[in-house]
Amino acid sequence: MASVTANWETQAAKCRSILEQSIPRSHLLSPDQIPPVSQKRVIDYPRESGMLSEQELLITRSTAADLVSQMSCGAWAAEEVMRAFLKRATMGQQLLNFATEFLEESALVKARHLDEIFKKTGKIAGPLHSVPISVKEHIGIKGRVCNAGFVSWCDNISPDDAYVVQFLQEAGAIVHVRTNQPQSLMHVDAANNITGRTLNPWNRNLSPGGSSGGESASVSFGCSPLGVGTDMGGSVRMPAAFTGIYGLRPTAARLPLAGLQAAGPGQQSIPASVGPLARSLEDLELFMQSILDQEPWQKDPSLTPVPWRSVDAPANLTIGIMKDDGVVRPHPPISRALKVAEAKLRAAGVNVVEWEPFKHQEIYDLANAFFAADGFQHLKEVLEASGEPVLPLTHAAFSWGEEMTIYMNWQLNYNREVFRAQYHGLMKLLGVDCILSPTYPGVAPEHETGTYIGYTSVWNVLDHPVVVLPTGLHVDPSLDPEEVSYMPRNKLDAAEHKKYSAHTFKDAPVCLQLIGQRFGDEMLLAAASHVEKATRSP
Amino acid sequence: MASVTANWETQAAKCRSILEQSIPRSHLLSPDQIPPVSQKRVIDYPRESGMLSEQELLITRSTAADLVSQMSCGAWAAEEVMRAFLKRATMGQQLLNFATEFLEESALVKARHLDEIFKKTGKIAGPLHSVPISVKEHIGIKGRVCNAGFVSWCDNISPDDAYVVQFLQEAGAIVHVRTNQPQSLMHVDAANNITGRTLNPWNRNLSPGGSSGGESASVSFGCSPLGVGTDMGGSVRMPAAFTGIYGLRPTAARLPLAGLQAAGPGQQSIPASVGPLARSLEDLELFMQSILDQEPWQKDPSLTPVPWRSVDAPANLTIGIMKDDGVVRPHPPISRALKVAEAKLRAAGVNVVEWEPFKHQEIYDLANAFFAADGFQHLKEVLEASGEPVLPLTHAAFSWGEEMTIYMNWQLNYNREVFRAQYHGLMKLLGVDCILSPTYPGVAPEHETGTYIGYTSVWNVLDHPVVVLPTGLHVDPSLDPEEVSYMPRNKLDAAEHKKYSAHTFKDAPVCLQLIGQRFGDEMLLAAASHVEKATRSP
Repeated sequence: MASVTANWETQAAKCRSILEQSIPRSHLLSPDQIPPVSQKRVIDYPRESGMLSEQELLITRSTAADLVSQMSCGAWAAEEVMRAFLKRATMGQQLLNFATEFLEESALVKARHLDEIFKKTGKIAGPLHSVPISVKEHIGIKGRVCNAGFVSWCDNISPDDAYVVQFLQEAGAIVHVRTNQPQSLMHVDAANNITGRTLNPWNRNLSPGGSSGGESASVSFGCSPLGVGTDMGGSVRMPAAFTGIYGLRPTAARLPLAGLQAAGPGQQSIPASVGPLARSLEDLELFMQSILDQEPWQKDPSLTPVPWRSVDAPANLTIGIMKDDGVVRPHPPISRALKVAEAKLRAAGVNVVEWEPFKHQEIYDLANAFFAADGFQHLKEVLEASGEPVLPLTHAAFSWGEEMTIYMNWQLNYNREVFRAQYHGLMKLLGVDCILSPTYPGVAPEHETGTYIGYTSVWNVLDHPVVVLPTGLHVDPSLDPEEVSYMPRNKLDAAEHKKYSAHTFKDAPVCLQLIGQRFGDEMLLAAASHVEKATRSP
Repeated sequence: MASVTANWETQAAKCRSILEQSIPRSHLLSPDQIPPVSQKRVIDYPRESGMLSEQELLITRSTAADLVSQMSCGAWAAEEVMRAFLKRATMGQQLLNFATEFLEESALVKARHLDEIFKKTGKIAGPLHSVPISVKEHIGIKGRVCNAGFVSWCDNISPDDAYVVQFLQEAGAIVHVRTNQPQSLMHVDAANNITGRTLNPWNRNLSPGGSSGGESASVSFGCSPLGVGTDMGGSVRMPAAFTGIYGLRPTAARLPLAGLQAAGPGQQSIPASVGPLARSLEDLELFMQSILDQEPWQKDPSLTPVPWRSVDAPANLTIGIMKDDGVVRPHPPISRALKVAEAKLRAAGVNVVEWEPFKHQEIYDLANAFFAADGFQHLKEVLEASGEPVLPLTHAAFSWGEEMTIYMNWQLNYNREVFRAQYHGLMKLLGVDCILSPTYPGVAPEHETGTYIGYTSVWNVLDHPVVVLPTGLHVDPSLDPEEVSYMPRNKLDAAEHKKYSAHTFKDAPVCLQLIGQRFGDEMLLAAASHVEKATRSP
């Protein structure tokens, strides 16, 4: 027992050392430049600290599309852009602990190479020319450790770049930093026994979400303009929502999963997606189109050969608003954001209808049953292989369900197909193009307290594409007081209700999610653009 | 026990009575017009019997494309066409027992309706205008029993037409007869305890194949020009191959499965496909295009939104020939057909390379393991619910494997993904567009003796589209003598080797299967057309 314990710590230290060795030395803040731990809000620190030049601030506040635009006219050099992001990412690491590894040297070599190409040809190398991207750690990078948050995988070297990374690189993007994730990849949080806990730049007492919490910290703080996460129950969307950025969970089997590591590969009842986190809707589309224009299905036969099809939202766009999933009532700021959105959408002439939650509890239960279908046997094996401590939120996941038989799994798969057909039929019947809903009962929860994923996981079961977008609103105690008289409808609801405190969440950003129709990712983003224009108008 | 037995027979008799009552009275042959049971070959009986007029023979020998062509210029009326097929189908029923139910009245009503439309508009109602189609019984028809070969489902009424039927009808097709299938849908044969055994028109001592054996008898005998089958391990392809016709197992999730009944719904490790059986390659394409042009994914969210894309085969078409899967050696007529095809393809300037079987045994084992994953629990429940006798080939299927855990299933799903990626990569690497191979070790086996499905089931695991096409060759004892000195390589091989007798299979048609790349159904049919032209040249 003692030797196992010694061993896991040694193994974890190896990966921690990789991280520490990789942090760009030249950009490190000295201890006196680092804000005190008691300073919760650090989202404005890059500007406030005075450590970044105006040009560096300008670059690192840019979207990927803007960066490419500036580089394509020669205004900014690739290396200059990369150095600015590496500098800001180093600051981000010291403040938020979002990274698992920096790739400074290779990123700079690649950026200089792209500068040379641009100098010679006058042309950019691709639609993501030298865009620095952060990548969630369990998405493999050739020759580097891929531990997926597990100590027992700290010696697991990826033989190749994951396919999604290959396509992004082919489009010109450069991976400059890899990001943190929770043990088991099943927390609404981002802490593990290897590189520890990632913090939320809006309020370091709050969670950046999970499992793509390193990504949300990275993109929201400006460590990268664009990040790559994964989502099997909300793991792109909750992090995006908690940090006030954009995130897309595409329809499954559009983007390649080859080269990702996680417990329970081969599970196919609830499909996983890889998806982007960004600071604009345009960048989400740029990400998708840059990959799909390369016809990734030619390389990966598990993908569907559906190209990216640029579309306009229908002229009579109809948005269903689901204000409450009927299981867990949203916190006041979320409900306020939905009301504001509804009014603004109506004012902008968008058709808005009430969307009654449809079999939400049943589909949420189905998601949990699917996650637990093997009794978490593979996950437990991977944990036991090192003897690392099982973290509380991993323990909590174990309660989602129990091992089931194949017989039961087939029945539940069948039920899932029925639900998918019913949802599809209902949206058609009601003429609803997209559904606007909470992403989570509240804004970013306090660390270790995020548990209810029912607002996101149902869409994984149904395999609808979903985009998270900021509303521009923030928690305001004067507008979002606690509902002291509310009588919770069940235990889950009571637990989530208790977590709300206007004071605790003051100023946290409020995001919503917009849900499209299966394979309608393009239409979803077009609709999101309409929704954003309408809801962000004064 | 006695009451259960009484019950199953009563239940089965209900469905048998539906069949008997539905057989078109006016077309019934009198006992003296029926060839004796000892007459094995009846494929030419429609002509030889003199019971059909020249016009009826002409109509019922036509492909669907030709029928539509004749009807679109007004040369033939829809009702005339339908009556001719009903007449031939009635003869087919008396000789082959291929049907479970005739839909004479509704078919004639619909045909007359289409004639009226044509009279009024001068235009056909769709690309399958009044094409009579036979449909495998487990594909539901609104308001009619759908028993899927199980006695316990003899009261199961379909609330709607299966989606595939709806799309075919929307294209103008008319279902005039429903066809037989084996108990459990897992036999390489077509016999059940309800409507009994279907025979092969080339030799009634031989099997029409299974599970779509009613369909293959129907289309090969001319009861319908086009039929609808299903394939999860070879159930369209073996029947097509055994009766000398064409059959397509499309890539999964292109055609809708909604409204089909079978044991074990929700199983998704080995995907099922619905697919056409026909008497020309052109008709297979007509079938696919007629459905896909309606964008079935708009109705059924389980489908991939991939339209039918007309393509040409590449100018430098390369065919890999797999002469033997390394598990079971093909019988002499199949090996001869492959040799002939190879020589003719080369003579026609097509690139031909040897395709070494790749992990064939492992993938075959995987298929069997997937079929057995729930320990056949659902299948057994459906059988036990009526107490009907379990037929020998159902018993045989039970030996394919044992119940597995979810943990194991996930691992095997993962292995399957690896195999898919490897196959895809290997075909790309070798520049092989399609693989030509046996469909089965031999031609149509004797009843109850067909067991080895490894030549077909591997492609279900890999989810490649596959087309079966006749070679124009038939078993010829002088060219296909038994290989008396052959030393079988394993038990399976020994068992299949023993089954061959040139005399037994004399004159049986020889077909081969051509395997494409996932989602490359269009390219596959284009390539098949090249292969056919080359191999059918003198």
